[in-house]
Amino acid sequence: VSGAIDLNSDLGEGYARWQLGDDEALLTVVTSANVACGYHAGDATTMRRTTTWAVARGVAVGAQVGYHDLAGFGRRFIDVDPVTLADEVLHQIAALDGITRVAGGRVGYVKPHGALYNAVVHHEDQARAVVDAVRDYDPSLSVLGLPGSALLRYAEQRGLRPVAEAFADRAYTPDGRLVPRSQPGAVLHDPEEIAARCVALARGEPISDITGAPLRLRAESICVHGDTPDAVTIARAVRAALQEAGIHLRSFVGAGEEDQA
Amino acid sequence: VSGAIDLNSDLGEGYARWQLGDDEALLTVVTSANVACGYHAGDATTMRRTTTWAVARGVAVGAQVGYHDLAGFGRRFIDVDPVTLADEVLHQIAALDGITRVAGGRVGYVKPHGALYNAVVHHEDQARAVVDAVRDYDPSLSVLGLPGSALLRYAEQRGLRPVAEAFADRAYTPDGRLVPRSQPGAVLHDPEEIAARCVALARGEPISDITGAPLRLRAESICVHGDTPDAVTIARAVRAALQEAGIHLRSFVGAGEEDQA
Amino acid sequence: VSGAIDLNSDLGEGYARWQLGDDEALLTVVTSANVACGYHAGDATTMRRTTTWAVARGVAVGAQVGYHDLAGFGRRFIDVDPVTLADEVLHQIAALDGITRVAGGRVGYVKPHGALYNAVVHHEDQARAVVDAVRDYDPSLSVLGLPGSALLRYAEQRGLRPVAEAFADRAYTPDGRLVPRSQPGAVLHDPEEIAARCVALARGEPISDITGAPLRLRAESICVHGDTPDAVTIARAVRAALQEAGIHLRSFVGAGEEDQA
Amino acid sequence: VSGAIDLNSDLGEGYARWQLGDDEALLTVVTSANVACGYHAGDATTMRRTTTWAVARGVAVGAQVGYHDLAGFGRRFIDVDPVTLADEVLHQIAALDGITRVAGGRVGYVKPHGALYNAVVHHEDQARAVVDAVRDYDPSLSVLGLPGSALLRYAEQRGLRPVAEAFADRAYTPDGRLVPRSQPGAVLHDPEEIAARCVALARGEPISDITGAPLRLRAESICVHGDTPDAVTIARAVRAALQEAGIHLRSFVGAGEEDQA
Repeated sequence: VSGAIDLNSDLGEGYARWQLGDDEALLTVVTSANVACGYHAGDATTMRRTTTWAVARGVAVGAQVGYHDLAGFGRRFIDVDPVTLADEVLHQIAALDGITRVAGGRVGYVKPHGALYNAVVHHEDQARAVVDAVRDYDPSLSVLGLPGSALLRYAEQRGLRPVAEAFADRAYTPDGRLVPRSQPGAVLHDPEEIAARCVALARGEPISDITGAPLRLRAESICVHGDTPDAVTIARAVRAALQEAGIHLRSFVGAGEEDQA
Repeated sequence: VSGAIDLNSDLGEGYARWQLGDDEALLTVVTSANVACGYHAGDATTMRRTTTWAVARGVAVGAQVGYHDLAGFGRRFIDVDPVTLADEVLHQIAALDGITRVAGGRVGYVKPHGALYNAVVHHEDQARAVVDAVRDYDPSLSVLGLPGSALLRYAEQRGLRPVAEAFADRAYTPDGRLVPRSQPGAVLHDPEEIAARCVALARGEPISDITGAPLRLRAESICVHGDTPDAVTIARAVRAALQEAGIHLRSFVGAGEEDQA
Repeated sequence: VSGAIDLNSDLGEGYARWQLGDDEALLTVVTSANVACGYHAGDATTMRRTTTWAVARGVAVGAQVGYHDLAGFGRRFIDVDPVTLADEVLHQIAALDGITRVAGGRVGYVKPHGALYNAVVHHEDQARAVVDAVRDYDPSLSVLGLPGSALLRYAEQRGLRPVAEAFADRAYTPDGRLVPRSQPGAVLHDPEEIAARCVALARGEPISDITGAPLRLRAESICVHGDTPDAVTIARAVRAALQEAGIHLRSFVGAGEEDQA
Repeated sequence: VSGAIDLNSDLGEGYARWQLGDDEALLTVVTSANVACGYHAGDATTMRRTTTWAVARGVAVGAQVGYHDLAGFGRRFIDVDPVTLADEVLHQIAALDGITRVAGGRVGYVKPHGALYNAVVHHEDQARAVVDAVRDYDPSLSVLGLPGSALLRYAEQRGLRPVAEAFADRAYTPDGRLVPRSQPGAVLHDPEEIAARCVALARGEPISDITGAPLRLRAESICVHGDTPDAVTIARAVRAALQEAGIHLRSFVGAGEEDQA
């Protein structure tokens, strides 16, 4: 995929009366939308509106599946048994896919959210539960996650397409892991620096790790955030830099448009 | 459909740790299962288990859609705006259908639950919202409800198949309405009497209204209850009497089996 | 109450990850805080933080009680039976009061929220249920609501102190009712005009109704909003104008401070 | 407290339409009722009814506090941060206490439920959070839990009264821990054997551990279950045996009655 990259972002994360992030702005930037499915955020109206917008703009729709935890926004690890977790992941994918189909699209991939995203890096049972649910629903779906995670390993083993992502605004250790947010320098803030890293990532060139040494990451998608005004600014800078560098922006599921002008 | 009738019942109405009714027993009696979709009852595991059992037994699966009201079991009227209601009904159908497909079946019809069932008899906006959601999802779905209701009228207008149901254990007024539960004689308790009425209904013969006068009801389906041990006994008596009378038991959606022995 | 008035506002209406309004700004303006109690908005952390701030600033704390409806933000009428409603109102008051006591204060009054606020203007059973719950919990609590409502009538009959409120930014009909939001001119936007009305209200002088004719309203409290930046600007203008006019700002429950400078 | 013991049981664990256990039967057996507070089970009506019954029978009321997890019945560990957990525990105690006071009683103690009960045996931060919340609300409350747990250690350190409990129907290891349910013999089923163990416990005599060796447990309270018909039979057998042996049945909080005949 030289010369092409996907940009993904979390969307549809409001609930009822409460808004979060600027979905309309993000949908002019990304090629893949990770849409919340009601377990950590999102409700029927938000799911419908977000997927309708995404389909209308040619942005690929993914099911952003989380723990059953509105109160915690899916950010706390829950020691849920794998059978229940698989049922819950299936429920989320099924609901979002059905709603997306009414808008003329379909769910193309699945990405775990928050604490579940972190858990399935190493929690074998929960990783397997997520993959089983995806495969039960539709083996043609892709699975988006952290390179080297149990999730992507199981996805590949079970015949699903694993898609590795990098984070535009996060520092990496020399061995390619994320620097924990609690450490200094873990999060990048300069739009130009972030955009330049994304261009390097898209070209398959090394970026600088936290020590300044070169680090080569393999990623088919770059995750950008959108829940603050600054984040939208950064996301736009990333998109502009990629386009200026002649990189094709397109979703890994093939549903994204190269240029949405 | 002379000589044939459908039996429907509410199933999958537990939630989390809590059980309600004897789903396994009911699935040996009915030909159509109205499965709760998580808004008034039901969770991912219950939805998956119930639909898996139903598909395995050849029982048709319907989405029993309700107000967003676990705390009230969907039994309180909610003055929700029609756009939101349509989104919520779509969400429920989509989720249940996707889960049912994993079990090898599909949702064949939609039946409103509780206070929503009562509201859409006369509440034009909510009736239209339910029908719009069903049609947006899949115009081949049937809509199950009260004869003469706004729901069935809109369903027909919008090209959906309306299916009228009768209640096995409820008394009717001379003009074919249900006697309110608050009035004496509103609910029948004698299994033999109830079974005999069901045979008459299935044959298109008149039953006795609350005054004893003959009343002819048109119904393609008969609703039986299953949330008490008595109810299961009655449901079994109804099924046995219908079979003894040579009436074919089959779902109106064509997915039910005539005899599940 | 010549020369003194209370300003009340809805606070603590976030939920989990989601924020709503600028509580800290509002708490420098109002003398009474209507704090959400978890049924339409609010969670344990929000309730604790908001009441702690209010107590620290000498702002009176009221329980803003609503229908059990996070999904609808308490804005849809729910036909809940009065016994259940009384239990739910009691639950909300009890929880907020216990939390407020830990901060060194206590709940001083109860104000219904959203659709419940509108319902208890005329819905006798629900109005009685709210009043019964308040009285069961603590007969020394005040009840804040619309002048002429069933709620205030029952409160007075049952020995509770009814407190009538006016709305700073709403137009009134000649007979003292709120002009429905759907009509032109229903909501005022000019901070100066709104502030001038509040000064008149506090002095017991007539304001202009929607036709321009003078209207005398009796209100011990004025409700200001704070869920938009504009609303906070207006609330501050109201407070400044009242202080400039020499009107004492103090809560009707006697817990508010006259001047928080 | 030689010759006296408390019997505690989980009550009020229904939710909305769903029932669990036979609260009325249990309230004729136990001297302390651990009442669910809405986070893992329980709603306003259940809380009010259960506490009203308990107060009327002279049964002590305890707040059975759990994780915010209706969907999982509080049985899954949640890695919630301690500040949030303390707020949630405070919320639960405050709500139940206020409701109990309307019935003429008050909350006398706090007992964690399910996965939280297990977590605070060793999870220092969560144990401290529970204890902090109890102390913030009312330092005169007792804390009921497992002997040797971090919970009881912190309770004592912070000046709260720790109360150790034993389980009537569970086997113990030689070092006084519960045999995990997954192992054979972990749960006792014979009412006579269970009742005899309870008499020994109440007298301070040793019981047999899983290997048959004598084990002396220190417990001020014995936990009996009530969520199955068998469980109620066992609970009644325990009570009868204790009374026959001349053991006083009374709550450790002093609110229970010795003999409710």
